[in-house]
Amino acid sequence: MDKEIPYKIYLEEDEMPKQWYNVRADMKHKPAPLLHPATMQPMTAKDLRPVFCDELIAQELNDTDAYLDIPAEIRDFYKMYRPSPLVRAYCLEKKLDTPAHIYYKFEGSNTSGSHKLNSAIAQAYYAKKQGLKGVTTETGAGQWGTALSMACSYFGLDCKVYMVKISYEQKPFRREVMRTYGASVTPSPSMDTKIGRKILAEHPGTNGSLGCAISEAVEAAASLDGYRYVLGSVLNQVMLHQSIIGLETKAALDKYGVTPDIIIGCAGGGSNLGGLISPFMGEKLRGEKDYRFLAVEPASCPSFTRGKFAYDFCDTGMVCPLAKMYTLGSNFIPSANHAGGLRYHGMSPVLSQLYADGLMEAVAVEQTAVFEAAEQFARVEGILPAPESSHAIKAAIDEALKCKEAGEAKTIVFGLTGTGYFDMYAYEKFHDGKMTDYIPTEAELKESFSKLPPQP
Amino acid sequence: MDKEIPYKIYLEEDEMPKQWYNVRADMKHKPAPLLHPATMQPMTAKDLRPVFCDELIAQELNDTDAYLDIPAEIRDFYKMYRPSPLVRAYCLEKKLDTPAHIYYKFEGSNTSGSHKLNSAIAQAYYAKKQGLKGVTTETGAGQWGTALSMACSYFGLDCKVYMVKISYEQKPFRREVMRTYGASVTPSPSMDTKIGRKILAEHPGTNGSLGCAISEAVEAAASLDGYRYVLGSVLNQVMLHQSIIGLETKAALDKYGVTPDIIIGCAGGGSNLGGLISPFMGEKLRGEKDYRFLAVEPASCPSFTRGKFAYDFCDTGMVCPLAKMYTLGSNFIPSANHAGGLRYHGMSPVLSQLYADGLMEAVAVEQTAVFEAAEQFARVEGILPAPESSHAIKAAIDEALKCKEAGEAKTIVFGLTGTGYFDMYAYEKFHDGKMTDYIPTEAELKESFSKLPPQP
Repeated sequence: MDKEIPYKIYLEEDEMPKQWYNVRADMKHKPAPLLHPATMQPMTAKDLRPVFCDELIAQELNDTDAYLDIPAEIRDFYKMYRPSPLVRAYCLEKKLDTPAHIYYKFEGSNTSGSHKLNSAIAQAYYAKKQGLKGVTTETGAGQWGTALSMACSYFGLDCKVYMVKISYEQKPFRREVMRTYGASVTPSPSMDTKIGRKILAEHPGTNGSLGCAISEAVEAAASLDGYRYVLGSVLNQVMLHQSIIGLETKAALDKYGVTPDIIIGCAGGGSNLGGLISPFMGEKLRGEKDYRFLAVEPASCPSFTRGKFAYDFCDTGMVCPLAKMYTLGSNFIPSANHAGGLRYHGMSPVLSQLYADGLMEAVAVEQTAVFEAAEQFARVEGILPAPESSHAIKAAIDEALKCKEAGEAKTIVFGLTGTGYFDMYAYEKFHDGKMTDYIPTEAELKESFSKLPPQP
Repeated sequence: MDKEIPYKIYLEEDEMPKQWYNVRADMKHKPAPLLHPATMQPMTAKDLRPVFCDELIAQELNDTDAYLDIPAEIRDFYKMYRPSPLVRAYCLEKKLDTPAHIYYKFEGSNTSGSHKLNSAIAQAYYAKKQGLKGVTTETGAGQWGTALSMACSYFGLDCKVYMVKISYEQKPFRREVMRTYGASVTPSPSMDTKIGRKILAEHPGTNGSLGCAISEAVEAAASLDGYRYVLGSVLNQVMLHQSIIGLETKAALDKYGVTPDIIIGCAGGGSNLGGLISPFMGEKLRGEKDYRFLAVEPASCPSFTRGKFAYDFCDTGMVCPLAKMYTLGSNFIPSANHAGGLRYHGMSPVLSQLYADGLMEAVAVEQTAVFEAAEQFARVEGILPAPESSHAIKAAIDEALKCKEAGEAKTIVFGLTGTGYFDMYAYEKFHDGKMTDYIPTEAELKESFSKLPPQP
């Protein structure tokens, strides 16, 4: 069997999925609805309309249809960088001397450098279809902003990105990639919005924050004619679009008669992990097959492993709806020392419900160990991984070493979400021995939990 | 026919070439031999042995065998990132509204970000096979150094990279990628070598130069026990290894019954262009088929279009052998304003001979126009191209527009050698309107040509 499996499994273009899979349709316990911050009542399509595109709202609220057609225009775009390869990590297996079979689905072979493009193109398409002029969004390090810029450029939409000021200044390269794709990139807080001007007046020297950038992007979308706001993670619609990752993975494995034992993904807001595990989770929910699913999060921002399953604000500014999710509190800010992404205080409501129902596991890993795994992986598999993706690598290596100890030839599949080309400052810190680990104290979490909103 | 051609043509793993093609075997006029700088006599294997690996010397001197087996160990490594896709540029064709069919062979889907890895892995393999401890090399911007670091890491070889000091300081990211792969990166000039110490004593504040870094790397290889020097372009062996690009391209086109009319590549030292055109040039040399071949070089460093076909030193320090090639003179230094690579004063002796024999064409293009083409390409095809590769894009677009004017549905194939993730400073300059063009004056070239060595 082994001999027959190539290093990289590529599906043919006509084997690519033509529908997204909506795992909510197979969930017995549906994820809890978003709540309106003023009324604490479930958000309706009408409530969401000033901010989101109509068809995306329909997807957001749809927890009954298991399959939704991928429009031909989106499939055409997917063909430019998909199917992404499912790689058999022969070299890593050899290096670890493990009987485990390791596969990874590599989503970094596109200019945005990550899986974010899968949802960006869908969101841009529906905005275009609705006849909008453009979209607004926020970005921290810039991965999502880059993906959205590419998608908007393809459909001729205007793209306004509010980029956290300190990232705008310290990470100019991603900003330039966005400009190459024609996006306007504004350091946040800015003088463009009411909330930006207010914050600048109160804190003239501020570096900005993701929470503030979200507020500016939402305000801009609501106040500009023909604009809507889009978001790259957490939302149900994003997980739907990202199911393409899992569907391709499953199709590639099925082609070679391989059944995974454990499926691993890094988890920030849950977009990649949710997309990767969706079709496999569907089988588990329908009682057809069983798999272990493992979410890997940073020990410095441990939503699943140390958070509360509660209604909380999606943004720091507390202007967005509330979601029921594993959360560290919308005021929680991970240590500045933390290098990668995965800094979000909450987690996808879908994944949160699945975790609460005992259908998946989670583990928290420390930063230095993650970079050690990243470097080990790069040296044998050739790919320089993003810090985010390297959380999954770390967990996959740990599982493979357990297999070695137990003498078990398990099949491990993990998501390699992207490349680390724009994260070399963090690698430099690691090489120079200047990287440290940080784990929030019980007292810090207690303080943050105390500010959770009253539960409905 | 069109309908059947996918966006990306991937060969199956078992369709990948098992032999490199050596175009010199089919050349009626062989490229002139390297000459010893002291005796001006052809370099023998013995002369080359202190500096290069034995098997690579054999490849360097072999102009009779058309096909050389690719060792299984190298083919295994190739499988980690090859076959590279041959992409049908449907979106670019549509944007240009041209009847031309445009294809590009994309070599950027590996962590080194370019085709350089194809030869780096071969050179590292032969060094390992010879039982060496390590290799030395120089790097400017760092593309070749990155590729070599990856290759050495895979085979457990030590890798010492002399990086031009100004690049080392101003472009820390590629340096960190090299360190991730375990290479030692030394800013050049350094105190490690005699030549480095001499230059530092004479010019304490120098920024370094590629010429100086080559001299340091060669000295280090010759003085360290168990080390040899390796080089990423210009040499015959490099063109041999890079023939994998053309062989895959040809196999992919043959699969769909497509015959190119014109094949285009950017040309610095010639490694990519030579590799891409090799098997097609072989058919032309054997009188089986005819193709147009087009080398694209920067107007600021126009070796083919304005250089002399003469014996010249391969390095600025004049310690390396002399090669007969199109050259601007080994003292020629392109304007500091020039952003991309392709800064080498000379050109592959094989390509030089083919050009002198009228078997291929060349064109020089200006920097600003190249970045305009790069941005246009990125926006429709999604890939952010390296400045070097964008020279080929510019020429391909020009040819496609000529087809539009003439109403001809020609088939254009070009080499997209790599990605521009580490070139965002140049893109920033372009976006900010601060990029300018530079063309050397006749007087400058005349001055440089006056320093060419006496011809044998």
